[in-house]
Amino acid sequence: MPEIYLNAIASALGGRVEFNDAATLGQPSEDCERIVKKTGVSSRPIALPDQYTSDLACTAARALFHQTGIRAGEINTLLVCTQTPDHLIPGVSSRLHGQLGFPEDCFVLDINQGCSGFILGTQTAAALLRSSIGSAILINADTYSRLIRPDDLTTRVLFGDAATAALFSTQPCGLRVLYNRSFADGSGYDAFVARGSALRHERDFLAGIHMDGASILSFALRAVPNAIHRALEDTGMRLDEIRMVAFHQANSFVIGKLVQKLRLREEQVPQNCSALGNTVSASIPLLLLDQWAQLKPGEFVLAVGFGVGLSWGVSLFERVSDDL
Amino acid sequence: MPEIYLNAIASALGGRVEFNDAATLGQPSEDCERIVKKTGVSSRPIALPDQYTSDLACTAARALFHQTGIRAGEINTLLVCTQTPDHLIPGVSSRLHGQLGFPEDCFVLDINQGCSGFILGTQTAAALLRSSIGSAILINADTYSRLIRPDDLTTRVLFGDAATAALFSTQPCGLRVLYNRSFADGSGYDAFVARGSALRHERDFLAGIHMDGASILSFALRAVPNAIHRALEDTGMRLDEIRMVAFHQANSFVIGKLVQKLRLREEQVPQNCSALGNTVSASIPLLLLDQWAQLKPGEFVLAVGFGVGLSWGVSLFERVSDDL
Repeated sequence: MPEIYLNAIASALGGRVEFNDAATLGQPSEDCERIVKKTGVSSRPIALPDQYTSDLACTAARALFHQTGIRAGEINTLLVCTQTPDHLIPGVSSRLHGQLGFPEDCFVLDINQGCSGFILGTQTAAALLRSSIGSAILINADTYSRLIRPDDLTTRVLFGDAATAALFSTQPCGLRVLYNRSFADGSGYDAFVARGSALRHERDFLAGIHMDGASILSFALRAVPNAIHRALEDTGMRLDEIRMVAFHQANSFVIGKLVQKLRLREEQVPQNCSALGNTVSASIPLLLLDQWAQLKPGEFVLAVGFGVGLSWGVSLFERVSDDL
Repeated sequence: MPEIYLNAIASALGGRVEFNDAATLGQPSEDCERIVKKTGVSSRPIALPDQYTSDLACTAARALFHQTGIRAGEINTLLVCTQTPDHLIPGVSSRLHGQLGFPEDCFVLDINQGCSGFILGTQTAAALLRSSIGSAILINADTYSRLIRPDDLTTRVLFGDAATAALFSTQPCGLRVLYNRSFADGSGYDAFVARGSALRHERDFLAGIHMDGASILSFALRAVPNAIHRALEDTGMRLDEIRMVAFHQANSFVIGKLVQKLRLREEQVPQNCSALGNTVSASIPLLLLDQWAQLKPGEFVLAVGFGVGLSWGVSLFERVSDDL
């Protein structure tokens, strides 16, 4: 089977910045400072009133075209991973297909996953590319702010709106996809639900996102280290051979606990949630984009997504020389 | 790469039957008779008030387990294709994972496509199975009735609520997956939209499904024959070698036009929309299930999905001997 590479990433952020400060949250300054200290999130990009998921996705895709010189007409797989589509019918990928001039002979699909969505998206894109020659774009785009209840500070202070566009192909440059594995535990469905967000009537809940933070934290601290150990076993690698663990940027508190538990070195674990918050499935590609220039050929990156569903997974990449 | 087989299909229908008659539609009898004659749809299964997409999906999956003797614990890929999920966050596949006891080490994902969803789902399931040994279940489940405007007879008389569960594996029985190809034209996004169904505000439209029937018909009569000719070219087959063309059951009028245009023999084109209507992405697997016992080893089935997005595609299957 052909090797698959993540060649490039581009991004787009919600058009305004919301700060976790007293003026915005309507809470005493010391409470806001405590929130920022604990979560590591100072501010977050938020979609403008007329900015929908398809708009962020479209901007990220255009940036990818600009950056790489690739044209929409050359792409034969377009996946959009989102949980906050413009419409239930059709998907955001159909909107993008029309707006950006992807070819008619193109596999076009929305996939729905949250904070594990970059891992499952990478796994899906790689599987599809191995079955048919060509190039794939994976978009990860969400506007969770539209489903956050403004008075629910436990979620409001965490989430940011963003999109990324990642180019995958058999062209040997960027990050070689070495390994993907994903996991699920649907018994934790209720730990993170957007009530009243689609077709189920919910009389007993306020509409919007409901998060059981304690339950999500305990899941992450159990499941993520296990999945990482499983990936290391499967690939015959040791954690100290990994140059970078690109954790889903849930918040600094969770990441700090994982660093402790896995005895990672701080320099192995870059973060970007201070000015972005938790950007759902876009958070890992946003982090990879930040760190892209630091990575040297032969270095390994372990990407780790985890969250709503419950769903989690691990991808292992190797930075290759772009002159191959 | 290993060969992939569609081993078995099971189904579940919405819990009540709605007839296209005067009492139900509130229209004169002769108008209703004209509707039935033109569309070929006499009645449709409709979800009960407390029956959501996850409920239909769960019932179909349980029926598949019962029929095949396979257990949830043996499945390592679970795809749910739906455009009418219970919630935007998490997906229906997460609900099913928890309810039915699929294993933790399972790839779990919702995909969003409409009437082409069985083709794109088959393509995705086959690609994932080729990358990792195991068995996959593809669920196609929708409850469009929740998004139909009751006074919009052009859509109301067509759509039924149903779910199917299809088992794919490398086990050589049932239908061998020979070929998949899918297409898209996002410039036709507005031809079929569920307005106000997710996060985009739509002040200028009534909430619910809006279909531009003329535009969808002209798309189908252009795109579907082209895709079929492309599939025949790609596989080196002739249309008269195909035992059965399993068209998406949009309605009898569209299917009749396609039969004429492609000069198919009536016996090549079974239909089931009289008592089911258009069951979106479940319509092709429902038809395959109806016809399963008639198919003899060595016979070819061309499955053709088309609709909202716009999105369309073709899969070619060969019935194999189950004693292989």
